[in-house]
Amino acid sequence: MSPKDIVDEMMKGDAFSRWLGIEIFDIQKGACKLKCAVRDEMLNGHHIAHGGITYSLSDSALAFSANAHGLKCVSIETSIAHVNPVYPNDNLSVECTEVYRGKTIGIYAVSIFNQEAKIVSRFKGTVHISEKTW
Amino acid sequence: MSPKDIVDEMMKGDAFSRWLGIEIFDIQKGACKLKCAVRDEMLNGHHIAHGGITYSLSDSALAFSANAHGLKCVSIETSIAHVNPVYPNDNLSVECTEVYRGKTIGIYAVSIFNQEAKIVSRFKGTVHISEKTW
Amino acid sequence: MSPKDIVDEMMKGDAFSRWLGIEIFDIQKGACKLKCAVRDEMLNGHHIAHGGITYSLSDSALAFSANAHGLKCVSIETSIAHVNPVYPNDNLSVECTEVYRGKTIGIYAVSIFNQEAKIVSRFKGTVHISEKTW
Amino acid sequence: MSPKDIVDEMMKGDAFSRWLGIEIFDIQKGACKLKCAVRDEMLNGHHIAHGGITYSLSDSALAFSANAHGLKCVSIETSIAHVNPVYPNDNLSVECTEVYRGKTIGIYAVSIFNQEAKIVSRFKGTVHISEKTW
Repeated sequence: MSPKDIVDEMMKGDAFSRWLGIEIFDIQKGACKLKCAVRDEMLNGHHIAHGGITYSLSDSALAFSANAHGLKCVSIETSIAHVNPVYPNDNLSVECTEVYRGKTIGIYAVSIFNQEAKIVSRFKGTVHISEKTW
Repeated sequence: MSPKDIVDEMMKGDAFSRWLGIEIFDIQKGACKLKCAVRDEMLNGHHIAHGGITYSLSDSALAFSANAHGLKCVSIETSIAHVNPVYPNDNLSVECTEVYRGKTIGIYAVSIFNQEAKIVSRFKGTVHISEKTW
Repeated sequence: MSPKDIVDEMMKGDAFSRWLGIEIFDIQKGACKLKCAVRDEMLNGHHIAHGGITYSLSDSALAFSANAHGLKCVSIETSIAHVNPVYPNDNLSVECTEVYRGKTIGIYAVSIFNQEAKIVSRFKGTVHISEKTW
Repeated sequence: MSPKDIVDEMMKGDAFSRWLGIEIFDIQKGACKLKCAVRDEMLNGHHIAHGGITYSLSDSALAFSANAHGLKCVSIETSIAHVNPVYPNDNLSVECTEVYRGKTIGIYAVSIFNQEAKIVSRFKGTVHISEKTW
């Protein structure tokens, strides 16, 4: 299966990524670019996007990039720094790159930018690479 | 304002925590217990809860606990390890405790358990404590 | 081998833990308590302990606790928050507890306190558990 | 003070970075390249470099890069993934880049490579930027 086929298959069953309104802009082995528009139901008590929104976008980007190689991967440990607020109706660009790919472990970095190309969050995630193919 | 008043105020504007169906079970200065039932729209392509769900619950628990002291706090850097899968209809218990509270920095640990008291994720988060009161 | 035998064996080859002057106070399956006195050669340009010192103590505590079960473990991803400065001649107490132990993954939390029982750092670490025995 | 002057000043008091044998190869505002040769006293019980060594190198690289702008910075929360073993006599290259620089918060990524240009660790760190100048 091609990276695009794998991610199409993943998205079919991924109800939460669909709720987020993720649009896949580019997908390759180990990397992807996503888009997402911030809706009112994504906001927290400060009237900015809940930290879980940018985390979830980053985690989806990690999953798509890591699985696009063809082997099923699950995330083990991930971290995110929130550096600028995300406002209602912001259009977010999510960029995932591969830092490392070994036999059983992969590391990915994800940056999210708003429509003014200002970074809003930075994520690092480690995945376990299984032997199961898509 | 009491911890309960602060969190009620936070929840009023927190559309995403309401979407998650968070039920606040206990709230004190620096600690809280939340409940959440896993719905189909929270699932990912593996038919288990998206990692963003347990992260979001942990981040809400962090926010409630840190803000319950009365000063407004924002999270700076957070990490989560996903150790067991979360299935549809699982009833999750979220427990947040305070590891450290200084003048400008606080650290919180959050564990999430399923209905069989099995841990599913562990989160650590660092917040910045502002001088603004609730 | 008992937890104590395993850690004695680990310490024999662990030149860096010996350089740190680690004293093992208590060791059990999944938990340990260490002591360490801060020397001048551990300081950074601010004349406080380099962040690498508390990280290294935490990482050794993680390794001892995780390996004490009898299977060889290696750390995958770890994070640390430095919350209070560590001064020359401080006597540090390092406490590691097990958050989770599965078949292939373990999670450990480490807090370090100074001689006034004030917390100076908090660490979370995820290890991979191999099938090799000590 | 220039980035080089600041880092020279930092290194003067930084006994632990000197113990590590850090050689500063390149220093700019927000970025640096360091070199380090692995000695026997840096090894752990598996006869590879202790995880604290690559963490310490990464943390020094973060400190040099963040402080080179001219304002004093301290690290708040940092994480590292160890992906390949570091052997005795390895010659390590440490590369730090700036992911984000705001008014009070900065984020840095550090990769360490061995003499075969193979990545051995990846670090992400968040610093607090004070108003004190060097």
